[in-house]
Amino acid sequence: MDCSIPFTGSDCVLLAHGGGGRMTHRLIADLFYPAFGNPLLAQDHDGCVFSVPPGVRLAYSTDSFVVDPVFFPGGDIGDLAVNGTVNDLACCGATPLYLTAGFILEEGLPLKELERIVCSMQKAAAKAGVQIVAGDTKVVERGKCDKLFINTSGIGAVPEGIRIASEQAAPGDVVVCSGPIGCHGMTILSARESLGFETALQSDTASLNRMIAGLLEAVPDVHVLRDPTRGGVSGTLNEIAHAAGVEILLEEEALPVPEAVRGACELLGLDPLYVANEGLVLAILPEKAAEKALSVLRSFDEGKGAVVIGMVTSGTGGLVRMKTRYDNYRIVDVLSGEQLPRIC
Amino acid sequence: MDCSIPFTGSDCVLLAHGGGGRMTHRLIADLFYPAFGNPLLAQDHDGCVFSVPPGVRLAYSTDSFVVDPVFFPGGDIGDLAVNGTVNDLACCGATPLYLTAGFILEEGLPLKELERIVCSMQKAAAKAGVQIVAGDTKVVERGKCDKLFINTSGIGAVPEGIRIASEQAAPGDVVVCSGPIGCHGMTILSARESLGFETALQSDTASLNRMIAGLLEAVPDVHVLRDPTRGGVSGTLNEIAHAAGVEILLEEEALPVPEAVRGACELLGLDPLYVANEGLVLAILPEKAAEKALSVLRSFDEGKGAVVIGMVTSGTGGLVRMKTRYDNYRIVDVLSGEQLPRIC
Repeated sequence: MDCSIPFTGSDCVLLAHGGGGRMTHRLIADLFYPAFGNPLLAQDHDGCVFSVPPGVRLAYSTDSFVVDPVFFPGGDIGDLAVNGTVNDLACCGATPLYLTAGFILEEGLPLKELERIVCSMQKAAAKAGVQIVAGDTKVVERGKCDKLFINTSGIGAVPEGIRIASEQAAPGDVVVCSGPIGCHGMTILSARESLGFETALQSDTASLNRMIAGLLEAVPDVHVLRDPTRGGVSGTLNEIAHAAGVEILLEEEALPVPEAVRGACELLGLDPLYVANEGLVLAILPEKAAEKALSVLRSFDEGKGAVVIGMVTSGTGGLVRMKTRYDNYRIVDVLSGEQLPRIC
Repeated sequence: MDCSIPFTGSDCVLLAHGGGGRMTHRLIADLFYPAFGNPLLAQDHDGCVFSVPPGVRLAYSTDSFVVDPVFFPGGDIGDLAVNGTVNDLACCGATPLYLTAGFILEEGLPLKELERIVCSMQKAAAKAGVQIVAGDTKVVERGKCDKLFINTSGIGAVPEGIRIASEQAAPGDVVVCSGPIGCHGMTILSARESLGFETALQSDTASLNRMIAGLLEAVPDVHVLRDPTRGGVSGTLNEIAHAAGVEILLEEEALPVPEAVRGACELLGLDPLYVANEGLVLAILPEKAAEKALSVLRSFDEGKGAVVIGMVTSGTGGLVRMKTRYDNYRIVDVLSGEQLPRIC
C-alpha cells in the first residue's frame, strides 16, 4: 500500500477529528481504510461480524500502549501495539486472526506522524498475518494526553490439543528463552533520556506468532509460553513460579544479555532481568523436548539466539532463584514498582 | 460484591501501579479481580481462552472513552465504557458475551475514584449480562493524561437469521427512535461548564442489549440498528443514508427532545440532532412492523419513550431532510467537527 495519504486541510490532529462528523470520516477514509482495508473493516458498522470454524476455542486479549517516545530505534508505538497483542495471543497457543485498534490522539499531533505510525501498524499486521477489523478514534485537548495512546485487542484461534497455562510448569521442565534479553527497555530508556546508547541498541519488537506456531507443531506439549514484557524475565518467571507452585532456577551464565544492554544496565544500576522485552518468548517444556525446541526456534530469525536459561524444580514453591557466575545463589524477586515507566 | 476494597499503602495511583511488578499485582488482586472476577479472567494469562458454539457468527467491536468529567449526573466513565461497547455489539444484532477493559491511569488519580469507576463497570456488566474477561492497566505521569481513559472491546454472538447492516435501509422503512434525544451530551456539557442545568438533566447511559434482543425476537426483519452517540441522531442517520443510497426524511414534530435539552440547546445555540446519546437506539424497519416494534420497545424501561421519527424514501440518495414545524423542509447535514469534544 501507498502510505503517503493526501490529507487536505490541517496538517495536524484537531479536536474535530474526534467529533464523529465529516473530519472524523475523512481521517478514517483517507488514512485508516487505505492502511487497514479489509472486508470486515469495510462493514463500516459499530462492530464487524464474522464466522468462526466449529469447535474452535478462541483466545482474546487486550493491551494499551503509552510508550514514550513514540518513535524509537527498531520500531514505534504502532508496530509495538500490533506485535504486543499478536504475541499475547500466540502465548495462549492461538493463531492470531483479528485485531481492533483504539486511538486516543492529542490535539496538535502532526498528521504525518500519525500516518507513519498507522503505516507501521499496517506492515506489522501484514507480517503477522492478522487483520485490523474494527477501530475507534478519540481526540483530547492539547496537554491531556501525550501525542497518542493506542489500545489493541485481539482474537485468535487455539488449535485442538494445545493447552498452554502457567500452572502447567512442572519440575523437570526447562526454561527456554528465544533470544537476547533487555533490548527493548534499554532502547526506550536511552532514546528518552538521550543517553547515547541508541547506536548500539535497538528494540526487539517483533511478532512471534509464526515462530511459536512452528514450536507448537514440533513440540505440542509445551507447558507454558509467556512474553516477558513489562516486569521483564524476572517478573514473568515469578508469575509462573507462583501460579504453578514450583521453583524456577536460572543460570546466570546462560542468560543471553547483549554487551550493549549489560553495559547500559551497569552504568545505570539496572538489572537486565527486570527490563522489558517486546520480541521475546519464554517457553517452559519437558527437558526431553529441549533440543528439538531449540532447533525449531533457531530456524526463525527472531529465535536464532534461543537458549535454555534454567529449569523448573520442586524447591520452594513460588520462588525464582539464580545460580550466579560465582556459583552461589540469589533470589530473583519481583520489583515493587518498575525501573522504567512507559516502556510499552 | 463489596466495592470497598482495602487498599494498603498509597491512596492514589502511582507510576509503580503500571510497572508490572508487585504494585500492579496488588491493584489487580485488590480491585479488578474482586470486581470483575470470573473463571475466564482468573486464567490470569496474557489472554483468556474460551469456546464458542458451532455455527455462531461473532460480532467484535472496540471503543475508547475519554469523557470529561469522569463523573456526571446519571453515570460515569465506567458504566459508559461498558454500556458503549455492549450497545455497539447489540447494534450488530449480537448477544454481547465478553468484554476486555484497558485502563490508562494518570499518576495521582485517587484510588477511591478508580474504585468507584470499577464498581460502576462491574454493575453495568452485571446488568447487561456480560463478563469482563481480560484487562490491562497502564499508568502515565501526572499531566500526561486526564485522570483516566478506558478502552473496552467486546465480543458477541449473532443469532442465526439476523442480519443488520446500514445498507439495508430501504424506501418504505420507518425510523424508530427508542427514547429522548440529547440527554447525555447536554448533561456532560452542563457538568463540565457548571452551567447549572444539571438538576434537570441526566445522562441516558444504559445497556440496550436486552431491549434490542426483545425487538429482534419480535421483529426479526429489522434492517438497521445504530446507537446515535458521537455525531448524534443526525450523524448516524447521515451515515445510514449514505451507506444505503437512500434519503431519510425526519418529522421535526415527532422528535422526542425533552424540555430541558431543548432549553439548554437554545440557550447555547446547539442543535439536539447533533448531541450525543448513550442509551438510545435508532431502528430502521419495514413500516408494517412499526406498531409491533414500538410496543416491544415501550415494554422496556429504556424504550418507554419510543416513537417513529421519520421514514426512508427513494429521494436524493445520501441525504437526510427534515420537515419542520412550519411545514417546510431543511437538509440535516453532517457537522464538520463537533459541537462538544470529549463527550464519551
